[in-house]
Amino acid sequence: MQVIAIVPAAGGGTRLGAGVPKQYLPLLGKPILAWTIRALLAVPRIGEVIVVVPAGDEGRVAREILAPCGLSVARVVAGGAERQDSVREGLRVASGAELILVHDAARPLIGAAVVEAALAAAAETGGAVVAVPVTDTIKRADGAGCVAETPPRGHLWAAQTPQIFRADWIREAHARALADGVSATDDAMLVERLGYPVRLVPGSTENLKITTTADLMAAEQILRGRGVTW
Amino acid sequence: MQVIAIVPAAGGGTRLGAGVPKQYLPLLGKPILAWTIRALLAVPRIGEVIVVVPAGDEGRVAREILAPCGLSVARVVAGGAERQDSVREGLRVASGAELILVHDAARPLIGAAVVEAALAAAAETGGAVVAVPVTDTIKRADGAGCVAETPPRGHLWAAQTPQIFRADWIREAHARALADGVSATDDAMLVERLGYPVRLVPGSTENLKITTTADLMAAEQILRGRGVTW
Repeated sequence: MQVIAIVPAAGGGTRLGAGVPKQYLPLLGKPILAWTIRALLAVPRIGEVIVVVPAGDEGRVAREILAPCGLSVARVVAGGAERQDSVREGLRVASGAELILVHDAARPLIGAAVVEAALAAAAETGGAVVAVPVTDTIKRADGAGCVAETPPRGHLWAAQTPQIFRADWIREAHARALADGVSATDDAMLVERLGYPVRLVPGSTENLKITTTADLMAAEQILRGRGVTW
Repeated sequence: MQVIAIVPAAGGGTRLGAGVPKQYLPLLGKPILAWTIRALLAVPRIGEVIVVVPAGDEGRVAREILAPCGLSVARVVAGGAERQDSVREGLRVASGAELILVHDAARPLIGAAVVEAALAAAAETGGAVVAVPVTDTIKRADGAGCVAETPPRGHLWAAQTPQIFRADWIREAHARALADGVSATDDAMLVERLGYPVRLVPGSTENLKITTTADLMAAEQILRGRGVTW
């Protein structure tokens, strides 16, 4: 079953400093984005990675990140204003795959075994989301700032990526979201709202999304603990 | 309005290594628990802190942690098997307060301004929980491991501590929980199930609960950033 991966990396978030979008910042000497693409390409069933970057960055990312890192089976296209727009741009150029995998640019520590498990679940169910059990106690607020409900924690999962879907389902989901003016915090929500089943696949807390300096330090520590070098 | 703080610190979790329960581990040279108690005693309205430790540790904690750190208005009592049992033990010896504040031993970075805001909310509403907006996309699972629902993230909060309640409400909540065999992941749940209102008070992500080595490193960095010394 052919799989194409889409990596939305068009965010301009520079919270980590240096005025550089976080996906380009170095992690043990290589851009975070390069580690992420490399982790996906380590999964044999992923035939191609489509990287969606800010318009104007395509050439530079191809020349300065992908080529020097030997990541030749990745393609670079320009994204849109929001993450959802960028995934849609990726879908526009992805052709031929039966499954589409979407993975955050800032999650470079994803392991191949988790991706394989999610691919198997998606092949069976049509949709799969990597997630970890919620450790916080979550409160749902009412309109007045009081607690309306504390949902039982045992039923709650924090979604990560990859999120993997039948290509026809995710295309329909993004088309319908655009037509309906719906935005969501992950791709699965757009698929769920059409009533298609999405399986939860247990991942790892090590698959962290790098958003702060502390995350970057933790990611370096995890990579060193794994004995990984480029 | 008199306030007594209860700090359940009877957990034996030694995940951070060294075979030492995490609340006793050093943070910039002082036990995590000492920082936590000190942060609470920095709030003028908190008249007393009751620290609930593993049975048998009372004398040692008083002598080796509280006394050397100059934390004389803290009292030490023995706790129970579970966190909920320890809070109940704390309630048993707390007398005279109109509000009871419960705070995790492993959250030493709580700021006085947040505690004051939560005290004000609890004085008005009867119950208050410090919480931060959820940043993950949360999925509720059905019985078959698929996504049943993605609750809108804008309504979700991750509960922290302090959690503050009218003394009569939290006493009733713990007594009823014990009678009904109910256990919960936080004190607020026990109060909520009686139908009493609990207000959500915005806190800070800096008020982290130290459970991993990475958390401990992050906590040291935050304390250094604040320029705090003992």
